Amino acid sequence: MMQTKAENIVWHAAKVTRQQRTEIFGTAPCVVWLTGLSGCGKSTIAVKLEQQLLAHGHPAYVLDGDNLRHGLNRDLSFSAADRSENIRRVGEVAKLLSDAGFIAIVSLISPYKKDRGTARQLLGPEEFIEVFVDAPLEICRQRDPKGLYKKADAAIAAGKPMMMTGVDAPYEPPEAPELHLATDRQSVEQCVQQILDYLWQHRRLLPPKKDQ
Amino acid sequence: MMQTKAENIVWHAAKVTRQQRTEIFGTAPCVVWLTGLSGCGKSTIAVKLEQQLLAHGHPAYVLDGDNLRHGLNRDLSFSAADRSENIRRVGEVAKLLSDAGFIAIVSLISPYKKDRGTARQLLGPEEFIEVFVDAPLEICRQRDPKGLYKKADAAIAAGKPMMMTGVDAPYEPPEAPELHLATDRQSVEQCVQQILDYLWQHRRLLPPKKDQ
Repeated sequence: MMQTKAENIVWHAAKVTRQQRTEIFGTAPCVVWLTGLSGCGKSTIAVKLEQQLLAHGHPAYVLDGDNLRHGLNRDLSFSAADRSENIRRVGEVAKLLSDAGFIAIVSLISPYKKDRGTARQLLGPEEFIEVFVDAPLEICRQRDPKGLYKKADAAIAAGKPMMMTGVDAPYEPPEAPELHLATDRQSVEQCVQQILDYLWQHRRLLPPKKDQ
Repeated sequence: MMQTKAENIVWHAAKVTRQQRTEIFGTAPCVVWLTGLSGCGKSTIAVKLEQQLLAHGHPAYVLDGDNLRHGLNRDLSFSAADRSENIRRVGEVAKLLSDAGFIAIVSLISPYKKDRGTARQLLGPEEFIEVFVDAPLEICRQRDPKGLYKKADAAIAAGKPMMMTGVDAPYEPPEAPELHLATDRQSVEQCVQQILDYLWQHRRLLPPKKDQ
């Protein structure tokens, strides 16, 4: 049993098993973890993947790093410690969603191997699907959908550190991701299809039951 | 827009709307928030309610205060400040689950009106269903399913504070809960049925679509 700070906690078994949820939803729950630089295409892919899965009746939900910072992680900054805590909480929520029967789609820069490793360990080998959403920094800078690179450059020129991944903070690419998408050479649709193919091949998506 | 500690956060609209999720799942998402003393029957009711909802195809998931303390809230103690933070995070996760299309069933002592009020505000009036799971303290003490009252009595007799709700920490009962269940006079099945009736009457559960 994992270590907790508070004592006197008793674990209540949820009566509905994971297997039962898988049968009810036609979906073997898992976490699709999209990692990559700002501007690499994570959010766009996440939202399209969610759409596709739901359109076929598979419960799916995007956990977006930025969105979560408006709610659950509102108390966290971009310091190294707070980034780790941010990723820890996102991992825990993704685990809850997968316990609930969902495919949780995480869209999060998550620059450090160590933090992604922690999430992988939390979820287990079959249920953690790491997807490296890869585009050269130069391309991400050109896209700059949120204007963050421009902002970071200006701040750094003025002598103010930004802790922006790829600019003045490191990005550690995954060494053995389950999927590696090159968004400078593949369309969004192709990338989403690659993820769907992976999910089918690894039996995370089950064919609909025949009418009885 | 809510205040966040970190700057440079852009909100990504999830493309699948709440209304679309409601149609896909046949369920208008909401949060059933069970509050009451330790031993009042919250967890038992929560688990049975989850079972019943899933058996009829409505996505549901129990967020149990104790279980969450093994994961997301592992860093929190039972101090007043940490209890508030615990409830804040549970509220945020319940909101995420309802955004995802679920009926989130929260089972949490949540002794303070103020904290429950915060959760209510976060979820909105139609989507927060406060259920007061009520049994006299004397009955809860007799049941003592986790042996916590006994433990608290012994600790307090030895001069050590326990911050146990109903013993040496207060419980503020809801003044206007959506439902008030008397578990010393009603069976578990009757309590669960009352919640299901409420959900039907308030159109949180939609009848299955006719085959086309």
